[in-house]
Amino acid sequence: MTGFWRSSLDPEHVMSTYVTRWQDDEWGQREEHLTVEEPLEIRLGGHSLAVIMRTPGYDDELAAGFLLSEGVIQDAGEILEVRPACDDDGLPQANVVEVTLREQSMSEAATSAFQRHFAVSASCGLCGKDSIAAVLSASEPLMEDASHFRVPAVCLYELPARLREAQAVFTHTGGLHAAGLFNVRGELLLLREDVGRHNAVDKLIGHGVLHATLPYSRSILLVSGRTSFEIIQKALRARIPCIAAISAPSSLAVELAEQGGITLIGFLRGRTMNVYTHPERITENGSESSVHS
Amino acid sequence: MTGFWRSSLDPEHVMSTYVTRWQDDEWGQREEHLTVEEPLEIRLGGHSLAVIMRTPGYDDELAAGFLLSEGVIQDAGEILEVRPACDDDGLPQANVVEVTLREQSMSEAATSAFQRHFAVSASCGLCGKDSIAAVLSASEPLMEDASHFRVPAVCLYELPARLREAQAVFTHTGGLHAAGLFNVRGELLLLREDVGRHNAVDKLIGHGVLHATLPYSRSILLVSGRTSFEIIQKALRARIPCIAAISAPSSLAVELAEQGGITLIGFLRGRTMNVYTHPERITENGSESSVHS
Repeated sequence: MTGFWRSSLDPEHVMSTYVTRWQDDEWGQREEHLTVEEPLEIRLGGHSLAVIMRTPGYDDELAAGFLLSEGVIQDAGEILEVRPACDDDGLPQANVVEVTLREQSMSEAATSAFQRHFAVSASCGLCGKDSIAAVLSASEPLMEDASHFRVPAVCLYELPARLREAQAVFTHTGGLHAAGLFNVRGELLLLREDVGRHNAVDKLIGHGVLHATLPYSRSILLVSGRTSFEIIQKALRARIPCIAAISAPSSLAVELAEQGGITLIGFLRGRTMNVYTHPERITENGSESSVHS
Repeated sequence: MTGFWRSSLDPEHVMSTYVTRWQDDEWGQREEHLTVEEPLEIRLGGHSLAVIMRTPGYDDELAAGFLLSEGVIQDAGEILEVRPACDDDGLPQANVVEVTLREQSMSEAATSAFQRHFAVSASCGLCGKDSIAAVLSASEPLMEDASHFRVPAVCLYELPARLREAQAVFTHTGGLHAAGLFNVRGELLLLREDVGRHNAVDKLIGHGVLHATLPYSRSILLVSGRTSFEIIQKALRARIPCIAAISAPSSLAVELAEQGGITLIGFLRGRTMNVYTHPERITENGSESSVHS
């Protein structure tokens, strides 16, 4: 390797380097693109809250989404400002964002609550039910606010191709997870990509926090990979009634989606899909009513 | 969804559920398998250190590997015992493991060091160089102890198929990340799977901690997905000189592998691969010497 340089394709997100390309017994040098990964420190009220490895870009969204989806704040309105942190001379610091809440006193409480998150202790052991109960005590299930949400199956089938088309960076490097927010007509509202799949979802949610467009109760979240417990937890905070993924969900993702009132779709490939929970929201093509209602 | 039950295929790692399977406009019920995801609490000296979402199994390895690869302990020999935690009546607690170090006083120091990890603060901002410097200050680069390590390209081409063959669970659910440890003849030494890709690597490393088989300085690590900074960081702690992945690395993964003395391979597919760093360890088929030396 002879070093890195910023790619002219997309200097913020893509770097270039030389690799040794092997094919069978032959090898040679060629240029390859790499997804940029760098640390981001999130500060709250002057205190360091977390350091996250992420793809640069939309850092304010990542910070805002992280705070909401991890439960550091309870409501999008608590955030007054997210800006690059400055040093003592007032110069901006690279890869550090400072979040200011409306009431600074809340900040310390929130920070300590978040740090306790890393030190949760169960006296009788720990199980998936505890994790689900903890999420549902912070976020009500979705039944009520999404009871009229319906999406046609044919609309869902279209989403993966639309996400891929919009993923300019993905085609360069193959190294990014994508999360897309769609409406029920299958139109892409927002796309975020990141080396971390949780980050891509946090950025989508953070956009809603910063632009006061939450809750996302009329939207579909599509993720490029698998769905875990944490992805469902984040979507529930943003009140997203339908999550689709190209790959498989975990058992705990399915359990939380079921109890949280979220329609969870997996293996969305071609014109097929598995609907793991709340299939009543999916309608036959051209029909307005659910096949399950 | 009508509930879950443990799959007879593999009750610890696989659950079954009914899904609504859609194809075009048709839908029906069918049974599907899900990868089990449950929380694990790791306690050190009676204090809760972390709660990790993981696939059950090899919890002692996960805990031991996590402690080493996150830098909570510096040496495998510091661990005296990893066992299920017990309640006041001496009954084992589900999904909680207790780690005992040889010198209990070290435990508290380690815990506080770990918690500081979440609150690192840089006065002039933060960048990838800082993250690399932090890793290399804890783990020396590999140049010296792996200078004679060589692996033929043809051996590397065989690894993905061998990993897939060994992944019994993966074929059931499609929901697991895999990490395999191979020798330079391409023989699979150890395979671990998990819903979390970091966990799969931590389990491999934890096996070495518990069985005193570290360092892995004669081994190749193959991961089923992408390689991030954290995967390289963990491998460096275990002294693994060669990491191969089916998909792309991030920019910071490549930078850390370069400076850490690790051969990093990506897009290992069919009889092709990209060698991002330290290509001198890869030899032509049938040749003992490196093409680059």
